[in-house]
Amino acid sequence: MRCFFDPKGVALVGASGNTMKGGYRILKNLMTGFRGGIYPVNPAYQEIEGLTCYPSVLKVPDPVDLAIVFVPGPLVPRVIRECVERRIPGAMIESAGFAETGEEGKALQEELKQICRETGIRLWGPNCMGLVDAVRKHVFSFVMEKIWAQGIIAGNVSLVVQSGFLSAGFLIDIMSHGSMGISKACSIGNKVDVDECDLLEYLIRDPDTGAIGLYLESIPNGRRFMDLCRSSRKPIVVLKGGKSAIGAQAAMSHTASLAGNGALVRDALAQAGVVEAGDFNQMMDMCKALARFPEVSKKGRGRVAVLTPSGGAGIVSADFVDQVGLELADLSQTTRDILTRIYPQWMPVSNPIDVWPAVELNGSEAYLTAFKAICADPNVDAILAHFFAVGFLGEDISPLAEVARAAGKPVFWWLMGWREMVSTIQKTAQEQGIPVFRELYRATECMAAVLKRKRGVGPGAPNVSVSGAIELPKELDRVLRGERGSLDEHLSKRILAACGIAVVEEKVVSSGDEAAKVASNLGFPVVMKGLCPGEIHKTDVGLVRLGIGSAEDAVQEFQVLKGRMEGRGAVLVQRQIQEGLELIVGLVRDPQFGPAVMFGFGGVMAEVLKDSAFGVAPLSTSDALGLMDRLRAKELLDGFRGAKAVDREALSRILVRVGELGCAYPRVREIDINPLIVEGGRPVAVDASVILEG
Amino acid sequence: MRCFFDPKGVALVGASGNTMKGGYRILKNLMTGFRGGIYPVNPAYQEIEGLTCYPSVLKVPDPVDLAIVFVPGPLVPRVIRECVERRIPGAMIESAGFAETGEEGKALQEELKQICRETGIRLWGPNCMGLVDAVRKHVFSFVMEKIWAQGIIAGNVSLVVQSGFLSAGFLIDIMSHGSMGISKACSIGNKVDVDECDLLEYLIRDPDTGAIGLYLESIPNGRRFMDLCRSSRKPIVVLKGGKSAIGAQAAMSHTASLAGNGALVRDALAQAGVVEAGDFNQMMDMCKALARFPEVSKKGRGRVAVLTPSGGAGIVSADFVDQVGLELADLSQTTRDILTRIYPQWMPVSNPIDVWPAVELNGSEAYLTAFKAICADPNVDAILAHFFAVGFLGEDISPLAEVARAAGKPVFWWLMGWREMVSTIQKTAQEQGIPVFRELYRATECMAAVLKRKRGVGPGAPNVSVSGAIELPKELDRVLRGERGSLDEHLSKRILAACGIAVVEEKVVSSGDEAAKVASNLGFPVVMKGLCPGEIHKTDVGLVRLGIGSAEDAVQEFQVLKGRMEGRGAVLVQRQIQEGLELIVGLVRDPQFGPAVMFGFGGVMAEVLKDSAFGVAPLSTSDALGLMDRLRAKELLDGFRGAKAVDREALSRILVRVGELGCAYPRVREIDINPLIVEGGRPVAVDASVILEG
Repeated sequence: MRCFFDPKGVALVGASGNTMKGGYRILKNLMTGFRGGIYPVNPAYQEIEGLTCYPSVLKVPDPVDLAIVFVPGPLVPRVIRECVERRIPGAMIESAGFAETGEEGKALQEELKQICRETGIRLWGPNCMGLVDAVRKHVFSFVMEKIWAQGIIAGNVSLVVQSGFLSAGFLIDIMSHGSMGISKACSIGNKVDVDECDLLEYLIRDPDTGAIGLYLESIPNGRRFMDLCRSSRKPIVVLKGGKSAIGAQAAMSHTASLAGNGALVRDALAQAGVVEAGDFNQMMDMCKALARFPEVSKKGRGRVAVLTPSGGAGIVSADFVDQVGLELADLSQTTRDILTRIYPQWMPVSNPIDVWPAVELNGSEAYLTAFKAICADPNVDAILAHFFAVGFLGEDISPLAEVARAAGKPVFWWLMGWREMVSTIQKTAQEQGIPVFRELYRATECMAAVLKRKRGVGPGAPNVSVSGAIELPKELDRVLRGERGSLDEHLSKRILAACGIAVVEEKVVSSGDEAAKVASNLGFPVVMKGLCPGEIHKTDVGLVRLGIGSAEDAVQEFQVLKGRMEGRGAVLVQRQIQEGLELIVGLVRDPQFGPAVMFGFGGVMAEVLKDSAFGVAPLSTSDALGLMDRLRAKELLDGFRGAKAVDREALSRILVRVGELGCAYPRVREIDINPLIVEGGRPVAVDASVILEG
Repeated sequence: MRCFFDPKGVALVGASGNTMKGGYRILKNLMTGFRGGIYPVNPAYQEIEGLTCYPSVLKVPDPVDLAIVFVPGPLVPRVIRECVERRIPGAMIESAGFAETGEEGKALQEELKQICRETGIRLWGPNCMGLVDAVRKHVFSFVMEKIWAQGIIAGNVSLVVQSGFLSAGFLIDIMSHGSMGISKACSIGNKVDVDECDLLEYLIRDPDTGAIGLYLESIPNGRRFMDLCRSSRKPIVVLKGGKSAIGAQAAMSHTASLAGNGALVRDALAQAGVVEAGDFNQMMDMCKALARFPEVSKKGRGRVAVLTPSGGAGIVSADFVDQVGLELADLSQTTRDILTRIYPQWMPVSNPIDVWPAVELNGSEAYLTAFKAICADPNVDAILAHFFAVGFLGEDISPLAEVARAAGKPVFWWLMGWREMVSTIQKTAQEQGIPVFRELYRATECMAAVLKRKRGVGPGAPNVSVSGAIELPKELDRVLRGERGSLDEHLSKRILAACGIAVVEEKVVSSGDEAAKVASNLGFPVVMKGLCPGEIHKTDVGLVRLGIGSAEDAVQEFQVLKGRMEGRGAVLVQRQIQEGLELIVGLVRDPQFGPAVMFGFGGVMAEVLKDSAFGVAPLSTSDALGLMDRLRAKELLDGFRGAKAVDREALSRILVRVGELGCAYPRVREIDINPLIVEGGRPVAVDASVILEG
C-alpha cells in the first residue's frame, strides 16, 4: 500500500494542458505539493507546465512507483497492462464509467479485476476522487486548486469515503470551512481491489493518523473489517449508509452492494469497538473529539461536571447527560469549599455549576476558579463547559484548555456568542486541537463517544475469523456434513446437547405403551409432539400436545399424533417445563459478516418490540454478556417480580457454543432455539431446529 | 400587553451616563430604534445624551405608557409604586436580585407580586433581558449596541426564553450570526406577573409573527398553555428544560420550578399540537422551517422526493427519511419519463434521484430539469434537495426556490461545499426565507416537523379546561365528595360502571352459601377476593383466590378469606375472565397540567419497558385514539397472533370517561384500572381503585 501513500515518483496518465480538464488539475495539485518525480503521460503533448510529457508509461524514467490514471474508461485496461509491463506496483484509477454505469462498465471493471488477479498490481478505484494527504501535501486528486488557498489544514483524523461525488462535496466542505484538521482523506470508489480493509489496516499503523472515520455503503469482508477494528487502539468511527429497508434498496441500485441486515451490522460494529455515527458532520465531530481524547479513564458511566454561566443551559445539559447515558459528578468537598467561597451566600453548590452569580460577585476570575477546581476534582472524569462569547469571559479559551490538559481532564466546549469572537475562538481551538462545538447536544454526544468507547484490545486481539472448537460424536458430525435442510426437533437438540447446551429431557417413543412409560418416568404432566419430516410449524398443524396428565392420556395421544402424521413421523415425549422467562437464541449466516448469534426475548411482546441483539461468531464470554446488556428489557434477566435471576454464565456459554457450532460447520445455515426457557434460573432449550444448506 | 410591544413613550428608570453601565446601553438602544418619547429617569443627571433626565417617573411628561426599570433590586418596589401613581400601565423590570438570589430576594419579589395584585399594573420580569423586536427595531434591553451592527435581521419567528443569561447568549448568537430572521425575542425571567401564556396569547395574534419558539423550564399553568396552543394556527415549538430526573433536580435549584413528570409534559405538548425540540439551535431551525411552511398538505406519512448529485448521500437520506417516519415518494410516470430522457441509458429511475450521471451527460441543466419535474409531480409532498456548492450547479438557488414556490412544494436544502459559495447561498437564502441546512439530518428532521405537524384547530378549539359531563347516582356522588383515601375495589368499580365503563360481573357476599350461589350463577371458575379496608395490595397478602371451580370450594374459600381479614372486610365473588391482552388505564393529577389520563400495557414486559402515554383530560375521542397510537407496542391492539383486535372505540370511550371523572371530581387524586383485560375484543375493568384526597 506504501506506493499509494508514499510514492517516489508518479506517472499521471491522462495529463492535460487544458486548464479546464481534470487531467490538468491533478497535475497542478501534484506540482504544488508532491516532492517526488512527476511524469505527465499523454501522446498529444511534448510538455505541460514545464514538465516533459511522455507518450506512454512505458517511456517514463525512474523513479516511478505510482500511476494516477485519468483516461476514458475503455482505455484504462490497456494503460494498466502497460503499468504492469513498466513494473509500476500500484495505480489509482480516477476515471469513471465502470460498474456504476451498467453492463459495459461492469465488463470493463471485471477486466481490471482480472488483470489484478493475474499480475498482482494494486488498483485503487476506479470512479473515485483519489487521495488527499494534508500532512504531506499530497493531493492525488482532480479537486480544484483553490483547495490550496482555502483548505488543507493538517490534523490527525483520516477518512475513508466510499461514494465518489459525496467525498468530493464532503471533503471540500470540511477542508474549505477549516472546521477540522485532516491527515489522509481516501476516496475509494468502486473498490475493484483496494478496499476499506486495506486502507484501515494502513491507517491503523500510520503515525500521522490518530482517529479514523469511514463512510461505507457495504462491508463485504465484514469479518476482516471487525478483526482490524478490534486490533486497533485508535478510535474508529463508521457511518453506515443503507441501514433502513429503504436505504438498503437505494444502496442496491447505487453500488449494487449488499447492505446487509441493519441491526446485525450495527451490533457487529459495536462488538468490534467501533463508534457508530449517524450523520456526516457528526462523524467528523466525533472523530475530532476521539482523536483528541483516544484514551480516557472513567468511573461508573462517566462522571461529568457541567460548568455554565446559565442555569437554564445547565438544566438542558443535565437532560442531555442523562440522555446519552452519562452521569453528573458528585463534586468533592474541596471543590464544594472553593465554590462556596466564590458563590453568593444564598446560593447552594450543585452540579451543573451555574457560575454566573459568582461572576457577578467576583468578576470573570470566578469562572477560572471554578474551572480549575473541577479540573482538580478526583470525582470528575470529564467537563462540559459552556463558553458564552459575549464579552465577560474574554476571547481566549486556550489558558483554560491548558489547565485541563495539565490535569488530564477532557473538556468539551459549547461555544456561542458574538460572531467575531466565536470565529476567533474557533480558529484558536482548531489550531490547538481543542474540541469546540456550536451545538450543545453535539458537544454532549461527542463527550459520550469518548467516555463510552470500549478501549481497543490492540494488536494481538483474537480474530473473529478463527473458529471455536467443537467436537461432536461421529454420528452427529456426519449429520451436519451430509444432511440437507431442516433437522427435526429431537435431532437438533441432540446436536445442541452434544455441544454442552442444556436441553429438556425427552425421548422418542415407538408405541403408546412406551409413551406412557417414558411419561411416567419424566413425571406428569408431559408434552407430546409429532416429529414429521419437513414440518417445522408443528403447533399450527396440531402436532404439539401440552399438559398430558396421565399414562392413559399418553397412550391415547400417541394414537392421535400418529394419525395426524399419517404414519410418517415419530412421536416425542418431553418433560413439561414449568413456566418461566422465554428467550430465543439463534444463529444466522450473514453475507457480509458470516455466522452471527442472535439473542432476544421470546413471547408475544418481544415479537412486537423486536428486542434482540446480534453478535458475530465466535463470541468471547464478554461478547456474550454484552449481547444480554444490549436488550432494552434486560432487567427481566435479573429476576423480575420474584423470579430467579437468569444464570448469566450458563446463558453466555450457550451463546458462545451456538456461535462455535456455526463456525465449525459452514453448512449450518440457521439455528433457532425457541423457546429457551429459564427454569429456576437455568436456561433450558425446549424447542430447537438446526437448518442445513440445500 | 400592548404597552410592552407598542408603547407611545418609555421612561427608563435607572438611566446612566456611564457608558460602561447597562443603564446607558438600554438608553442608547432605545434612541437607536424606538420612535416614541424617551424619558431617562435618574436623580443624578440633568441630561444624558442630549435628553432631559428626570429625577423620578412622577416628573416624566406624556406620553408614557411603559417604564423600563434598571435600578438595584431593593429600590424596585418604590419605583413600581411611583409608576402606579403616574398611571403607567406596564413596567419591564430588568434588574436582578429577586427570587433567584435567596430569601431576601424572594421577599422582594413577593412585594412586587403584591403590588401587581393590588394595583393591576402589568410587570414583566424581573431578572430578564427584556424585549428585542427586530421588525420595529425596539431593543428594550441592555444587550450591547453592536447588536445594531451585527444582528437584527428582521424575520417572522418570535421567541420566548425563560432563563435570563441564556437568552442573552442565545439571542446574541442567533442575531449576530445572521442565521435567521427574528420578529420578537422576549426574555421573561422570574415571571412575577407576565408569563409564557400572556406572551403566547399576544404572539398568536401578532401579525409580525409566523412561528413561535419557547424555551421553558416550567409551565405552571399547563392547561391554559395547552388551550392557547390548540387555538393557534401558527406553529409553536417548545424546548422544555428539566425533562430527565437529573435535569428536573437542576431545575428545582435553579428557578424552584416544578419540572413535572417528563413523560406527561411531553405527551401534553404533543396533544396540544406543539412541536417538541431537543436542543437550542434545532429549535431555531424548526421554527425557521415551520414559519416558512406553516400549512402543507400531504398524503400518507408525507411523500418525499430526494434530489442529490451523490448516490451515497441519497442512501443516507433514505435512511433518515425512514428514521423520521416519512416515506419516499413513488414518482409519477411523467417524472419517470422526464428523468429517463436525461439519464444515461444504463441508469434506472428511482427515488432518491441521483442526478450526477445526468449532469455529466447533459450539464447542470439536468439538475434543474429533474427539480422541475419533481416540483410538478402530484405524488410528491416535499423535496429534500442536496446542493453541493462545488461549482457545477452555480451559486444561486433562488431560481430553483422560485420554481418550488410556484408549485407550492416545500423544499429543504442540504448545503455543502466551498466556504465562499456556501456563505453567498446562505445569505441569499436568509434574505428570501429559503430553509437551508448545513447538516443532512437536521434538514430531514425539520422536514418531518413540517410534514408531521398536526394542523392547529385554530380559534374556537375546545378548551381542555372545560369539564366533561358526568352524572352519578346520588349515593356515589356523595362518596366522591365525602370519603377520603383509597376506595375498595368493588366501590371503585361501581363508580366506573356508573360512568359507562364495562366492569367484570361481581357481587359482594355475606356468607359461604351466598358465595356458592353467586359463583354458580356467574359460572365456574370464579375469583374470590377479600375487600379489607385500607388494603390495596390484596394479592400480596393472600386476599385474591383464582380458579375456584366448584360450589364447595367457594364455601371453603369464603371462610379462608374471612379468617385472613380477621372478620374486618367483605368478600367479593367475581367472574374469572378468560386470558387476554392486559391493559392499564389510570388518572393522575399533575401539578402543572391537572388531571391526566394514562394508558399503557399491563403485565411484566410493559412494567419493564414502561410503554405508556398520557393525555391531559378531558380527552376528545381523537385524543384518546392518539394515546393508543403513541404506544410502541401498539401493534398488540390490532389482535396479535390471532387474538381479536381491541374495540378501539370502546377503549377510547373508557379513556374519555376516566378523564371526565377526574375533571368533574377534583377530590379524585388517582384512578388505577389494572388490569383492564381485553376479552373477545372488548375491554373490561377487572380490578380498579379510586383514590381520593386526604
